[in-house]
Amino acid sequence: MSRHPSARLSRHAGHAPGELVHIGETKTAEPRILLIEFSPEHYQETTFASLAASRTHQPGDGTLWLNVYGLQDVAMMAEIGRRFQLHPLVMEDVLNTHQRPKIEDYGDYIFIVTHVFDYHPASRTLSEEQISMVLGRNVVLTFQERPAGRFQPLRERLKNGIGQGRRLGAGYLAYSLLDVIVDQYFVTLDQLGDTVEELDTRLLAGQADGGTLARIHTLKMALLSLRRALWPLREAVMTLQHGDSALLDDETRVYLRDVYDHLVHLLETVDMQRDLIAGMVDLYISTQSNQMNRQMRFLTVIATLFMPLTLISSIYGMNFEYMPELHWKWGYFIVLGVMAAIAAGMGYLFKRWRWW
Amino acid sequence: MSRHPSARLSRHAGHAPGELVHIGETKTAEPRILLIEFSPEHYQETTFASLAASRTHQPGDGTLWLNVYGLQDVAMMAEIGRRFQLHPLVMEDVLNTHQRPKIEDYGDYIFIVTHVFDYHPASRTLSEEQISMVLGRNVVLTFQERPAGRFQPLRERLKNGIGQGRRLGAGYLAYSLLDVIVDQYFVTLDQLGDTVEELDTRLLAGQADGGTLARIHTLKMALLSLRRALWPLREAVMTLQHGDSALLDDETRVYLRDVYDHLVHLLETVDMQRDLIAGMVDLYISTQSNQMNRQMRFLTVIATLFMPLTLISSIYGMNFEYMPELHWKWGYFIVLGVMAAIAAGMGYLFKRWRWW
Amino acid sequence: MSRHPSARLSRHAGHAPGELVHIGETKTAEPRILLIEFSPEHYQETTFASLAASRTHQPGDGTLWLNVYGLQDVAMMAEIGRRFQLHPLVMEDVLNTHQRPKIEDYGDYIFIVTHVFDYHPASRTLSEEQISMVLGRNVVLTFQERPAGRFQPLRERLKNGIGQGRRLGAGYLAYSLLDVIVDQYFVTLDQLGDTVEELDTRLLAGQADGGTLARIHTLKMALLSLRRALWPLREAVMTLQHGDSALLDDETRVYLRDVYDHLVHLLETVDMQRDLIAGMVDLYISTQSNQMNRQMRFLTVIATLFMPLTLISSIYGMNFEYMPELHWKWGYFIVLGVMAAIAAGMGYLFKRWRWW
Amino acid sequence: MSRHPSARLSRHAGHAPGELVHIGETKTAEPRILLIEFSPEHYQETTFASLAASRTHQPGDGTLWLNVYGLQDVAMMAEIGRRFQLHPLVMEDVLNTHQRPKIEDYGDYIFIVTHVFDYHPASRTLSEEQISMVLGRNVVLTFQERPAGRFQPLRERLKNGIGQGRRLGAGYLAYSLLDVIVDQYFVTLDQLGDTVEELDTRLLAGQADGGTLARIHTLKMALLSLRRALWPLREAVMTLQHGDSALLDDETRVYLRDVYDHLVHLLETVDMQRDLIAGMVDLYISTQSNQMNRQMRFLTVIATLFMPLTLISSIYGMNFEYMPELHWKWGYFIVLGVMAAIAAGMGYLFKRWRWW
Amino acid sequence: MSRHPSARLSRHAGHAPGELVHIGETKTAEPRILLIEFSPEHYQETTFASLAASRTHQPGDGTLWLNVYGLQDVAMMAEIGRRFQLHPLVMEDVLNTHQRPKIEDYGDYIFIVTHVFDYHPASRTLSEEQISMVLGRNVVLTFQERPAGRFQPLRERLKNGIGQGRRLGAGYLAYSLLDVIVDQYFVTLDQLGDTVEELDTRLLAGQADGGTLARIHTLKMALLSLRRALWPLREAVMTLQHGDSALLDDETRVYLRDVYDHLVHLLETVDMQRDLIAGMVDLYISTQSNQMNRQMRFLTVIATLFMPLTLISSIYGMNFEYMPELHWKWGYFIVLGVMAAIAAGMGYLFKRWRWW
Repeated sequence: MSRHPSARLSRHAGHAPGELVHIGETKTAEPRILLIEFSPEHYQETTFASLAASRTHQPGDGTLWLNVYGLQDVAMMAEIGRRFQLHPLVMEDVLNTHQRPKIEDYGDYIFIVTHVFDYHPASRTLSEEQISMVLGRNVVLTFQERPAGRFQPLRERLKNGIGQGRRLGAGYLAYSLLDVIVDQYFVTLDQLGDTVEELDTRLLAGQADGGTLARIHTLKMALLSLRRALWPLREAVMTLQHGDSALLDDETRVYLRDVYDHLVHLLETVDMQRDLIAGMVDLYISTQSNQMNRQMRFLTVIATLFMPLTLISSIYGMNFEYMPELHWKWGYFIVLGVMAAIAAGMGYLFKRWRWW
Repeated sequence: MSRHPSARLSRHAGHAPGELVHIGETKTAEPRILLIEFSPEHYQETTFASLAASRTHQPGDGTLWLNVYGLQDVAMMAEIGRRFQLHPLVMEDVLNTHQRPKIEDYGDYIFIVTHVFDYHPASRTLSEEQISMVLGRNVVLTFQERPAGRFQPLRERLKNGIGQGRRLGAGYLAYSLLDVIVDQYFVTLDQLGDTVEELDTRLLAGQADGGTLARIHTLKMALLSLRRALWPLREAVMTLQHGDSALLDDETRVYLRDVYDHLVHLLETVDMQRDLIAGMVDLYISTQSNQMNRQMRFLTVIATLFMPLTLISSIYGMNFEYMPELHWKWGYFIVLGVMAAIAAGMGYLFKRWRWW
Repeated sequence: MSRHPSARLSRHAGHAPGELVHIGETKTAEPRILLIEFSPEHYQETTFASLAASRTHQPGDGTLWLNVYGLQDVAMMAEIGRRFQLHPLVMEDVLNTHQRPKIEDYGDYIFIVTHVFDYHPASRTLSEEQISMVLGRNVVLTFQERPAGRFQPLRERLKNGIGQGRRLGAGYLAYSLLDVIVDQYFVTLDQLGDTVEELDTRLLAGQADGGTLARIHTLKMALLSLRRALWPLREAVMTLQHGDSALLDDETRVYLRDVYDHLVHLLETVDMQRDLIAGMVDLYISTQSNQMNRQMRFLTVIATLFMPLTLISSIYGMNFEYMPELHWKWGYFIVLGVMAAIAAGMGYLFKRWRWW
Repeated sequence: MSRHPSARLSRHAGHAPGELVHIGETKTAEPRILLIEFSPEHYQETTFASLAASRTHQPGDGTLWLNVYGLQDVAMMAEIGRRFQLHPLVMEDVLNTHQRPKIEDYGDYIFIVTHVFDYHPASRTLSEEQISMVLGRNVVLTFQERPAGRFQPLRERLKNGIGQGRRLGAGYLAYSLLDVIVDQYFVTLDQLGDTVEELDTRLLAGQADGGTLARIHTLKMALLSLRRALWPLREAVMTLQHGDSALLDDETRVYLRDVYDHLVHLLETVDMQRDLIAGMVDLYISTQSNQMNRQMRFLTVIATLFMPLTLISSIYGMNFEYMPELHWKWGYFIVLGVMAAIAAGMGYLFKRWRWW
Repeated sequence: MSRHPSARLSRHAGHAPGELVHIGETKTAEPRILLIEFSPEHYQETTFASLAASRTHQPGDGTLWLNVYGLQDVAMMAEIGRRFQLHPLVMEDVLNTHQRPKIEDYGDYIFIVTHVFDYHPASRTLSEEQISMVLGRNVVLTFQERPAGRFQPLRERLKNGIGQGRRLGAGYLAYSLLDVIVDQYFVTLDQLGDTVEELDTRLLAGQADGGTLARIHTLKMALLSLRRALWPLREAVMTLQHGDSALLDDETRVYLRDVYDHLVHLLETVDMQRDLIAGMVDLYISTQSNQMNRQMRFLTVIATLFMPLTLISSIYGMNFEYMPELHWKWGYFIVLGVMAAIAAGMGYLFKRWRWW
């Protein structure tokens, strides 16, 4: 995650609408395509090293799931767009990885853009990846910036025919992908929560140093990034769930409501974390300032204590000819005694006023 | 209540949708099932130690109320789900005790998730428990994490045929359960209110110590937890009340409006408490800082008072050969007198400026 | 008004829904019932000391207005509820004086709960009273905690046939009661406004003492109480005005719009007052802190002024054998002159920098 | 503009609804009525000193525009109300000049209440005036507190037949009046903007004195007054524009949309000004506090500089019998040199640390 | 961008509605008109130096795109308005360059007002330009304050027949213009983002000087200006996209949704930037204040360190006859040693307390 959110937003400016330009980092060396075909009865995986290789493949009757890893090959992406008859804007959005999360119904297919975050506790940074999906009749396309193995358990379940995945087809597959993506947020949020807790412990133990506030600032920005990605996704899922697209049957819609609930829960947790951090910071600043003030008062009290003592000794340092006390035998000791008494008296007073 | 809200949110990530996993602490040793059957004419309670024992039980014609205490026996929960033909997601939510409060209409039954809070004044902590309900035709299921006796008065009223409970059946029973749950919030809020009042008294009496702000922070988080649990419940009850489910008759809907009113009242009270706390803290910080400033000024005034006196005595400590005053007979006493006059004058001035 | 809003909210918890319990202080010694019957042609008042006395009373054809003062006689209230066929929840709400303001349409009658505030400038406290109303066909019931004479002018106008009160019947009577209640808010707000103005004058005149901020806090809580009572009432009146209840004719609805306008005006005035107070406090704190800082700088400037003077006199107090200046004839006076010059120079500098 | 917004809100309390009472200052000596009659072909002005004089006047066929200046003659107002068959609440609102801006559709006529503000740069005060309008079929009534000449250009245009005013009749006239009123806000806001700019310049030039924050507070309250008057007017104009009143034809509605745009623009400008002021104040306080802190540090640095010097001279002022340095020939000058070196060294250090 | 937003808002006040007045700076010397005619088959550009020259031009069958640069020639603008039968308010808005962004459907044509911002990094200022458009049947009018070459790439694409521009006609052209305008915001926001990043780096490196906060204030105002221009545009585009105007076909509406997404993205980025700036400022102020407090404590610690030393030396400067220590041989050195020990002890203590 770049700290500065507008990073190169303008790279697309000057291009015509629908013109395909890959905007974003290239995160994998070689684009790769993985095709999965399944029906309630069978399951088959095919990997294509290049698009040329795939041209001769003849798909069967079941549901098609096309995984694309790596977005930098614009020509390949254009061909995919043409083959599945996607709107030029769809492919433009797939390639521009600074897209907002959204779900758009194009009638024949539904286009879904989501973001996934990975937290790296060592460097305390978030990395963000855009995952786009197209849900058509009997077909699901997924576009990822690199192979991250996120959907591997899903493929395992499909392969082994566990659950209702094979029976319910493309709509349920799209839901399952969303579910995996949303579950990843729980993981990320848990890790962020651990960092929050660690910082909290440190603050309360008074071990905060100069970098602590800066780290809290980074944490706040990370939570804000999650919020920005979750909020539009929540809206989009709600629209999808209440929509009337023929691509989703009622059975799948019930599951979408579950995804929606998870998103609401995530948003609330993010907000709770943000409140927690805000409270932590306030408490820390207030404690810090209080402590500093007490220290200054302590120092000032000490200074005040010495004032009368210094005055007295200064008085008896005067060179007047006639100062009777100077000639008293015990004058010196009496003065020392008086000083001690004054110091003790003031000390007692300040103690009673709780100023030390 | 864990202080860190995301605590182990991610435990479900990686499981398939609808796969049953118990998420949350195990709060009772042995799951227990209590079956209540009632009609306007009769009332009968049966306790089953295990699910096996219940399989032979033949229910009668009336309304069925199945109480489940303890959620850790996943196999038992799965069987209950199957027997009452509940959607897999319902049982998943029952077992995951970090669910948001919600009310979902599945057509044949309504699924209700609520949270209940108990305040422990001694440790100043809130404990949270999830209570799920399923309202079907002539049947109510309740799932609690442990037997807490919350619904005992309700069972007594049913047993003794007091009120309209027996006559109005399952819908009214579900309302009564909600009513008990909402009433518990009033109790919790009263106890929190007592803590707020105690803190307020302490702050105004100037007895706040280092832990006070931390305690206020905890209190704020507790109120926030209540708010988070009440807000979605309010929405859900409103949706239920205005919905068209055949499981609730008009007579019961009027009572639901009453529950809704209570929830609004609770939310307002929570917000009022939060305003009160915010005001208390502001007042405290402002008073504190004001007092600290006055003390610093007082000390600085004292220091300033000694400045000219020390200068004078220092001047007459100089060793110049020709300093006529030194040879005056009353020089010493005159200087002492001048010092006293200066001190008195400054003291008077500071008094008039209200600087002490 | 209790300072702690949740005061004994939980007293109702544990009771069955619809069970009548009087919650709140008992504010009058003896419950009293005043029955008014009027038609365009006649007007008649009857006072009943007890409910028993009223049982024999045979009402005429016109509009009935039943005033109940004092709510503690639960049996009497229950009988009234039964006689006018009110829902158990209505009577429960009448008796629970911590109800939110609301207007509920029960079909045959409309139930209205409002709160009235009296400000006592001497003790600077608000007292709150709940006034409930039931508007039925040709009948209006009002329930007050004590006889306060609020509706006396209304009764006078009815008695003397002034205005359209007699002609327009129960709906217009309910409106008139609401109008009186809303007008009372204007009075209360004016009195609070006077207190605000008095505090403002005091703050600007620099006469704020320790209690001022606490008093402002109380004032803020009072305005918040008004806001809490006005906001739901506004919503309720709007719903009533736009509703389709047959109990209100179009002529009365126009008047309700006027009440609605007044409520909006009141809410805006409350918000304006709150802004005013917030601004006052900010201004005060800023002025206060600025003044304190200036005083500290003034004191520090004085201390700084004495530093070089004390150093010089200290230098000439050293006991070196060879210090030529000590033996100059005018050495002492030259040194005094140099000191004066330094003091004057620094004083001029600080003056130019506007540090005194 | 009174600084205290609730000023005598309660004066109407105790009066019956619809009872006419003039609430507000009397701003003109003698109420005056100006009647304008116009049709596409002709235009005629008649001034009546009293209502009696107007009774004999026989209006023609065209559009009637009745201007009333001065509201204190309650009897006259009542007669106007009766003659044009206005609802009692309309006349009550006309007379109560603390009304919120609003537009009410009474079927046969539309009642419009607006406020106009004049800014007096000399005294830096806003004066507020209520202008009420009634738009009926072929008739427009305007009620102003005093003759201010606001509508004079409009009358000129009507008289000289410029624009479409004569052709489009009463609806367009009402729009034109609203347009003039809204344009006056632009003038007021420009003048306030000049004051904001002047204050800004002063703050940045460091010429802020004690009164500046108080003046900013007044400015904020003035902007808030404008906002309070504009906000409901915006809502009202939108309702009117989208309404279906037969009194406004489609041609006029297009113009109303323009008024609506102006109101939105005004509101945004007010909010921008408020943000600007808030930013100014924050910047000023931050600069102020920073400067004060630097000054205190500067003074403390000076004090610290003198500490070691005073100690050294104090040491050589001790009266020990055996202090070898005292007998060195150049002891005195060496000590002076050491002092100078210490001062220079510390001065250099503080300089490097940028503490002066 | 004027820093003071209301700059001469009132210039239009006093003019009749629909009266044409040019409000705003004159930004180009000579108004110029560029007419483009195109159909799927051909493309033709004609430049007119004056309106007179254009009168003889006979347009062909295809789509007409009229570019007007420079708005000061009111007579010319009036003629354009008449020739295309535009509502007087449209031309008034075109000429008043302080218009809010908006899209108005006049039935036969749609009127669009937008603002474009250019950021000048050197002077760190934003310049704002209003671009108005009218989309009619087969005709698009654009009004710019000066020729800026923004639409040149668009004209190139049209000229060379690239993309679908020629085929899709006027609606798609209007969309393309909006797209160019919105893309310009990305460029501006990127440049602002660079400034934000530069400031951030400077703040973290501790190189902030007096002007930094003022510069941040300017930046905040610039982001606010963007927000103010984007917000209503977003609303307007949404209304247009969901509207039913016959001037836009379904194919173009899909593209409008893309513009809408960009606007939402821009608004989120602006808000993110504002959060970032707010966080930066808070962090800076907190760091600054913390550092200042540490410096003051350091200085006060030094002062406190010298207190006891000065007292001791002062004591042995007293002139008592009988002070045994003065006569000790090593008295002087013992006292120096004691002083050193005290200083070292206090230094160690302050070190352990981390006060240096």
